[in-house]
Amino acid sequence: MANIAVLGAGYMGSAITIPLCENGHDVRLWGTWLDDELISETRKGKHPRLGRALHTKLQLYDSTGLGHALEDRDVIIIAVTSEGFIPVLRKLLQALTRPLPLVTLTKGFVTLGDEVLRVSEGAARLYNERFARQEMQWASVGGPVKAVELSRGIPTATVFGYRGSDVASLFPAFPTPYYRVLVTGDVTGVELCSALKNVYAMGMGMCDGMHEKSGVEIFHNFKAFVFNQAVREMAMLVERAGGSRETVFDLAGVGDLYVTSASGRNGIFGRKVGAGGVPAEEYRRMLEAGEVAEGYHTLKLLMTYADTLERGVMEKLPLLRAIEEAVFGGKNPRDELLRFTGQCYGTM
Amino acid sequence: MANIAVLGAGYMGSAITIPLCENGHDVRLWGTWLDDELISETRKGKHPRLGRALHTKLQLYDSTGLGHALEDRDVIIIAVTSEGFIPVLRKLLQALTRPLPLVTLTKGFVTLGDEVLRVSEGAARLYNERFARQEMQWASVGGPVKAVELSRGIPTATVFGYRGSDVASLFPAFPTPYYRVLVTGDVTGVELCSALKNVYAMGMGMCDGMHEKSGVEIFHNFKAFVFNQAVREMAMLVERAGGSRETVFDLAGVGDLYVTSASGRNGIFGRKVGAGGVPAEEYRRMLEAGEVAEGYHTLKLLMTYADTLERGVMEKLPLLRAIEEAVFGGKNPRDELLRFTGQCYGTM
Repeated sequence: MANIAVLGAGYMGSAITIPLCENGHDVRLWGTWLDDELISETRKGKHPRLGRALHTKLQLYDSTGLGHALEDRDVIIIAVTSEGFIPVLRKLLQALTRPLPLVTLTKGFVTLGDEVLRVSEGAARLYNERFARQEMQWASVGGPVKAVELSRGIPTATVFGYRGSDVASLFPAFPTPYYRVLVTGDVTGVELCSALKNVYAMGMGMCDGMHEKSGVEIFHNFKAFVFNQAVREMAMLVERAGGSRETVFDLAGVGDLYVTSASGRNGIFGRKVGAGGVPAEEYRRMLEAGEVAEGYHTLKLLMTYADTLERGVMEKLPLLRAIEEAVFGGKNPRDELLRFTGQCYGTM
Repeated sequence: MANIAVLGAGYMGSAITIPLCENGHDVRLWGTWLDDELISETRKGKHPRLGRALHTKLQLYDSTGLGHALEDRDVIIIAVTSEGFIPVLRKLLQALTRPLPLVTLTKGFVTLGDEVLRVSEGAARLYNERFARQEMQWASVGGPVKAVELSRGIPTATVFGYRGSDVASLFPAFPTPYYRVLVTGDVTGVELCSALKNVYAMGMGMCDGMHEKSGVEIFHNFKAFVFNQAVREMAMLVERAGGSRETVFDLAGVGDLYVTSASGRNGIFGRKVGAGGVPAEEYRRMLEAGEVAEGYHTLKLLMTYADTLERGVMEKLPLLRAIEEAVFGGKNPRDELLRFTGQCYGTM
């Protein structure tokens, strides 16, 4: 039996409480200042995004209740957006009286000052300001997990990239017959994959959009070409960041890219752009409807991050460049994608 | 300028003549004894399966014209089904007066006596009976290529796994701006991937079928779980056969599995089985309509082949076992797939 607090009452934070409660743990769900309505609706019956009631034993806390939510916990699960991560972590660290293992579902990059960092890097900086000389116990969660499906008990495989034995000892709290957990020591690989797949899913969406627009119905070869190149480029980036290529070729990379490109907000955003929409407008329109295409924000930060790995690395990432040109460079997505495919695999 | 003969006038053999003719090569397409109608229809205008005319400079030969089709050729491309491969190769070797490089699009396994072999292994046996002490110049073609799309100029990436410098010198004949060719020395990996992905695509189709049947519309997590496990198991099999895992994580494996599971005869067959159809009947019904679900035949041979790699290796391949039980063991596909997911990733 573990005492668990989940921070963030959106899709993933809420969904993960279900297997945890089913496993008999003491679980508290805290909603951020953006989640107050989600919490109050959930109290009345159903979680509005998941479309189902959460477990009867789950304890709900609104944004004013962080201190109470954190009392007597063994582990904290952070499930806020990448933009919300640093503010929530600061509040969390302020409220904690002793260091606790952190398990995070946040995907993307964070900024501290003018630096762009992986989530775990950013977290470690703040953690060590608060708890000096304590090794942060950390897990990044990745893999092909749509929250709504997890909440309905659809068979789901996830991967935890972790550092530290205290956090590892908590992993048996998670799996159920339908929620399967693979464990790896490659934090860097898991968290980079989780960020990158949102960016590449936008590219696959563009592929759909450009074909919808042109009325061509058959383009599986093209989409597979883009999918495969996404895997190649993710492997290159993860390797340069010190992670393992094998992580990319498993649940965190290949598996998650598969699910993210088949369904979800980043793919939808890409499709709108591929069909001729103006990227900034499409992003704003989705945001206003409460749907964050996280890849958009991640792509911005990735340009800076990639440059810190290796200057000029973008030259080796023709698909990423095509996506960037279409989303932020004002270029035609169709032209960019066709140029990228025409250049792949040498000049034979 | 190369002189090329393509053997087999079905989907792939016919489609590949298009980029080759566009590149200005002298190309002959020979149809087997099963292809006579395809050849005569194509002569009248359109290739019946591709739904378009082939290149005006392409020379067509029906089954009686093999000798003429082979005159003055630099390379032979074999594009028949795995069941037709050995008979066609025997005819070819009989007709050849000197050894020529072979490029093959055939996917699956072949049988010689009571042995089950990879296509290149089977070919090498017959080749060396005909041309003793000559190293066979060989390439296996893989990757995410639907023939109809290639024939329409949709951007397509393919991979050639090759052995021998004569065959490599011919590769520049193939690429066009829309048909991109990656080259690797891993024949074993490319040809095993090409065979295995048809089998695993049946499993992904089953996943679709069981959800269609139950009326559940969301199952991306589950399908990604199956996709990812297919990649893992393909990597295990390729490694044990002496190929490279990296081949599986690129166009031949991940890329081709992506396209094969999104569209095609093996996925359709799997979907029918997943929705409750009787496998042998569904296979026969498709066959009668001229649609061969090659994975069905490949799966049968794979059981024998896998055992030659490592006795009991099936115990390490829970997804393959689930597919085999559903297709040939009379078991319920839903039960098999759910059991497999519930057992993955240890017993935590």
